[in-house]
Amino acid sequence: MAISFELKARDGAARRGLLRTGHGEVETPAFMPVGTLGTVKGLLPGQVWQAGASIVLGNTYHLHLRPGDDRIARLGGLHRFMNWQGSILTDSGGYQVFSLAETRSISDSGVVFRSHVDGRMIDLTPEKAIAIQENLGSDIAMVLDECPPAECQETELERAVARTISWAKRCRDAQTRLDQAQFAIVQGGLNMDLRRQCAQALVAMDFPGYALGGFSVGEKAGAMVEALPACAAALPELKPRYLMGVGRPEDILAAVASGIDMFDCVLPTRNGRNGQAFTRDGELRLRNAAFRDDARPLDAECDCPACSGFSRAYIHHMLASREMLGPILLSAHNIRFYQRMMAGAREAITAGSFSAWRSGWLVADPCDL
Amino acid sequence: MAISFELKARDGAARRGLLRTGHGEVETPAFMPVGTLGTVKGLLPGQVWQAGASIVLGNTYHLHLRPGDDRIARLGGLHRFMNWQGSILTDSGGYQVFSLAETRSISDSGVVFRSHVDGRMIDLTPEKAIAIQENLGSDIAMVLDECPPAECQETELERAVARTISWAKRCRDAQTRLDQAQFAIVQGGLNMDLRRQCAQALVAMDFPGYALGGFSVGEKAGAMVEALPACAAALPELKPRYLMGVGRPEDILAAVASGIDMFDCVLPTRNGRNGQAFTRDGELRLRNAAFRDDARPLDAECDCPACSGFSRAYIHHMLASREMLGPILLSAHNIRFYQRMMAGAREAITAGSFSAWRSGWLVADPCDL
Repeated sequence: MAISFELKARDGAARRGLLRTGHGEVETPAFMPVGTLGTVKGLLPGQVWQAGASIVLGNTYHLHLRPGDDRIARLGGLHRFMNWQGSILTDSGGYQVFSLAETRSISDSGVVFRSHVDGRMIDLTPEKAIAIQENLGSDIAMVLDECPPAECQETELERAVARTISWAKRCRDAQTRLDQAQFAIVQGGLNMDLRRQCAQALVAMDFPGYALGGFSVGEKAGAMVEALPACAAALPELKPRYLMGVGRPEDILAAVASGIDMFDCVLPTRNGRNGQAFTRDGELRLRNAAFRDDARPLDAECDCPACSGFSRAYIHHMLASREMLGPILLSAHNIRFYQRMMAGAREAITAGSFSAWRSGWLVADPCDL
Repeated sequence: MAISFELKARDGAARRGLLRTGHGEVETPAFMPVGTLGTVKGLLPGQVWQAGASIVLGNTYHLHLRPGDDRIARLGGLHRFMNWQGSILTDSGGYQVFSLAETRSISDSGVVFRSHVDGRMIDLTPEKAIAIQENLGSDIAMVLDECPPAECQETELERAVARTISWAKRCRDAQTRLDQAQFAIVQGGLNMDLRRQCAQALVAMDFPGYALGGFSVGEKAGAMVEALPACAAALPELKPRYLMGVGRPEDILAAVASGIDMFDCVLPTRNGRNGQAFTRDGELRLRNAAFRDDARPLDAECDCPACSGFSRAYIHHMLASREMLGPILLSAHNIRFYQRMMAGAREAITAGSFSAWRSGWLVADPCDL
């Protein structure tokens, strides 16, 4: 087996677990920082590791276009290329094709799209999505799925689920690397019957892990959190469950309460580059002139490189002066914030106090600040 | 005394020394990375320290305009503001006024210029240059000098030298902090009589250290290296000698051979941001497609964060993808390259083999690569 997973503790539907890959252990619930192009933006791999992350996500779409997965394979695989000692999960590229690429056409065989880098037409089939990820050599590969927009027709949703099931089977059949585990992806939007039907078909194929796709794609507020308990319950108890592309701290904690084990999101680094710092009291917008003379650290209880020696006034000055160190410090802080949150969730699950811990962790509604 | 300086070894005109400030020891010859706005661009202070730097330079002009030296003083001074544990030298702001600012007018009393940040008119006098640097709390402050362009008239040069001498005296008289040492600056362009005359007047004022200004300002190639031995010899033997704004590795080594102790330059970080890596074989331009598949580190003999785990191919990919990690890795490498060069020079001086070491250190003319 390329990976193993064991449950260590349960607290209601929330679970604490241990995922083992060929590149070490990952305690779950786990947050995976996003390393789109082979770098968690602005940070050295050692800084990401020091923040407490033991698994990162790489983007198949981006890495296939540049520098090319064949090149990465020749250079020893993605771990070595990006100098990352921990585990790597790669997505299938499908989501980026649907959200970023132009001139795409979707058929039962796969997707055709135009590269945003050099304009050439590229064919992405289930078989190719796996071949690319095997070139990258990630520990966990995601199957190619079809992720329709939130506002799509019921027939479109049904067709997407049927394709997602059929493509999952083709991905499985295309697998040649035994050191890489494939996770299947459940689609179905907010239609719980479709979600259950999709999950049932994929569970019958016995994948080593399962993901929930098609959330955080523009559905109305609260719909995802409402749907998660049933979606999680439709997945095997003893396999890791991954909620793709989520997300905000409060959504992650709601998902953990529903029994989800793995998460990824660009928010900590993207918001960091945009001058925002996550705290338990909500997000601080460091570009705000109110921070000009603020001698306090971003977060008095944080042990990240930014909070260990730099004032909000300094970080404000870095942003006002367009210095790289502003985004660097904020990204380091935000990644550490997410990891501290996940560590807190894991400890609370073991202690059987997850619900109380969760309601105390985020002090204020982020929208208030 | 705010600083002390002792010579540890001599090798021809080259000297090895130890400079002590209120923030620790600096082995000389020393290279000071430039931290213009309170940050060595792209690097955490810990990374600059790890690279071997024990003193950095801060720019009075930039910090006065933003975030303001009064604000930095309220926040505990520049060391604390930028979280730098080592020593800091600040320039006087004069050079930036002459090279960057618009609408300036120079008189015997000082300089008036328009802020490039918010357009207000700012008066920079010798007294104000010292007051700003005392607010910043640097270990070493530079006196305000007049730095005329390389192609100026002899009368302009003479007037600049006269003002530089008079302003140095006013800076000295304005000093109130006993924990800050002032260095005087010798001007005079390529006129050796003027240089000697300027040095003599300043040496009579008994400053704790002396700098050579007005080099690397557009004079013809080789002129500076030719002038340095006489310029250095005109300065007191037992005080630190600082060549401002220089420079290229080969120029620094020539200056060390002439008896200069301290250097600063933006080249390692600026060229790093532009995709260039210094090596003993010359500069590598990592944007070049030739590096696309190059699995080697930047420099096999380097121990910097970039050379410890990343390939040239990866750094090329970071630059091609406009990822922050490209400039970060190259800046870290270049700062380490300069520090390794200075450490090599110091050891060679102690061993009495500086001349042989120097001719072997830079293998190729950088222009050949």
